Amino acid sequence: MSATIIRGTPMAEEIRAEVAEGVAEMRSKHGIVPGLAVVLVGDDPASAVYVRNKERAAMEAGMVSEVVRMSTATEEDVLSAVRRLNADARIHGMLVQLPLPDHISENRVIESVNPNKDVDGLHPFNMGLLMAGRPRFVPATPGGIQQMLVRTGFDPSGKNVVVLGRSNIVGKPIANLLMQRSDGANATVTVCHTRTRNLEEVTREADIIIAAIGQPRYLKADMVKDGVVVIDVGINQIDAPERRRGYRLVGDVDYHAVREKAAAITPVPGGVGPMTIAMLLSNTLKAARLHMHPHLRDES
Amino acid sequence: MSATIIRGTPMAEEIRAEVAEGVAEMRSKHGIVPGLAVVLVGDDPASAVYVRNKERAAMEAGMVSEVVRMSTATEEDVLSAVRRLNADARIHGMLVQLPLPDHISENRVIESVNPNKDVDGLHPFNMGLLMAGRPRFVPATPGGIQQMLVRTGFDPSGKNVVVLGRSNIVGKPIANLLMQRSDGANATVTVCHTRTRNLEEVTREADIIIAAIGQPRYLKADMVKDGVVVIDVGINQIDAPERRRGYRLVGDVDYHAVREKAAAITPVPGGVGPMTIAMLLSNTLKAARLHMHPHLRDES
Repeated sequence: MSATIIRGTPMAEEIRAEVAEGVAEMRSKHGIVPGLAVVLVGDDPASAVYVRNKERAAMEAGMVSEVVRMSTATEEDVLSAVRRLNADARIHGMLVQLPLPDHISENRVIESVNPNKDVDGLHPFNMGLLMAGRPRFVPATPGGIQQMLVRTGFDPSGKNVVVLGRSNIVGKPIANLLMQRSDGANATVTVCHTRTRNLEEVTREADIIIAAIGQPRYLKADMVKDGVVVIDVGINQIDAPERRRGYRLVGDVDYHAVREKAAAITPVPGGVGPMTIAMLLSNTLKAARLHMHPHLRDES
Repeated sequence: MSATIIRGTPMAEEIRAEVAEGVAEMRSKHGIVPGLAVVLVGDDPASAVYVRNKERAAMEAGMVSEVVRMSTATEEDVLSAVRRLNADARIHGMLVQLPLPDHISENRVIESVNPNKDVDGLHPFNMGLLMAGRPRFVPATPGGIQQMLVRTGFDPSGKNVVVLGRSNIVGKPIANLLMQRSDGANATVTVCHTRTRNLEEVTREADIIIAAIGQPRYLKADMVKDGVVVIDVGINQIDAPERRRGYRLVGDVDYHAVREKAAAITPVPGGVGPMTIAMLLSNTLKAARLHMHPHLRDES
């Protein structure tokens, strides 16, 4: 079988172009420019790269972008920055880049963000709306996964979806998203994790598998059925002495072997990864629209 | 096989006695009496009975109880009653009895309740905490189901749990509760619903089935495996001309037939039903404790 390769890069470009169009329309019709703010604490190089990419993508979409960089900060410093951005009318969406240093409570910081600006969708209020079937800001990775399925014609409706992993940023929100009675959802969802027994019996029944456990090449070909659709959220570094940087990136799926049985599969890199920034921009545009039309919030 | 009958009535009495003890201790040590308020709108006779039962149970547990009854009310009337109770220091827990009349938005009313007093656990903020694995107020029915499993030694950890139904008050919260990495949870959870295909194949793999779909005697013996544990949340009226009132109550499970194959099963009535008020009281005591010790909220 020749699997469809679901590529995130062109799809993310498509979504970013749609967002840019929405931004241009909002600017010309209403004179409003959606604004995205990112708070970056500490000097983790990977976080710095992620934040720069978000900043650049927001600019490219025609948005206002603000980055608050704090090399060292107390929890109160971060809370104070969040409060200022909550009150800033030019900023419609904001996020605090995670992880935060150990001395700062991520929960307290996330809960201090105005839920109407929480474009990461991590505030408990927004997680609750997602669980209740009225999502306002779907976290970027789950939102991207849903788009990848729907835009390639692999609608999850009526399908057995198996989610590997129960993190708060991927596993639990994608499960809650896909089990809802709504378009692009309506799946029969099973969530598996470290305590799951006979995992391969569960995965072999899956029409769609979403792997988000952070174990390199964990999902093998003998764990899936023919015609499965596989979304690989993993990004794992493995040693690769032949490469100049000494490592390469692989997903949670044994890609080459699973691809032989799959109807469709996402590569790593170039799969889910590029979708996340596109979905963040999409959420920011939505935040600006909800700011303009607060009554729409009740329908979300 | 002789199934264990998991009876809710004595277990609920046990929990209510534990709560009464906690209330007495709080009163004697700290001079604080936990207070529960219920807002009842309209003249639905069933709702009136439920509210009276909650009021009586709160009194029996030694709590302060207040019921705000409004035969007719605008949405603003209800919101105003909620605001007053939010501000009332004697009231630690409150709920608005559902369903509300059609002209009142249940979502707006629920979101107006102070999340720290939301003992029904229906505010999106509290649903989000539940989803994130930091439950503060678990909705009464899911909380009761978990207690029934744990207190009878049928710990869901590592088990395949199949939830039938995806309502916001039972299906989705019990799924989110049991999939967490925590005591009394750690299950591999599958949520089934109207769009699920080959449902009986899914239910036959289940170690524990939680039926909450509102279809009388839907789950048949040939849909379950030997040794299954069945929690029946359904309460359905079916015609029973031989009875004086003309109907009888049955669950979502074909009780007598399924009991022959099950390791344990809850009856209807006398199963999950009695647990809900006990869990409401338990949440109210917890609300009073969190009010006294706000720092504990961050650990919840």
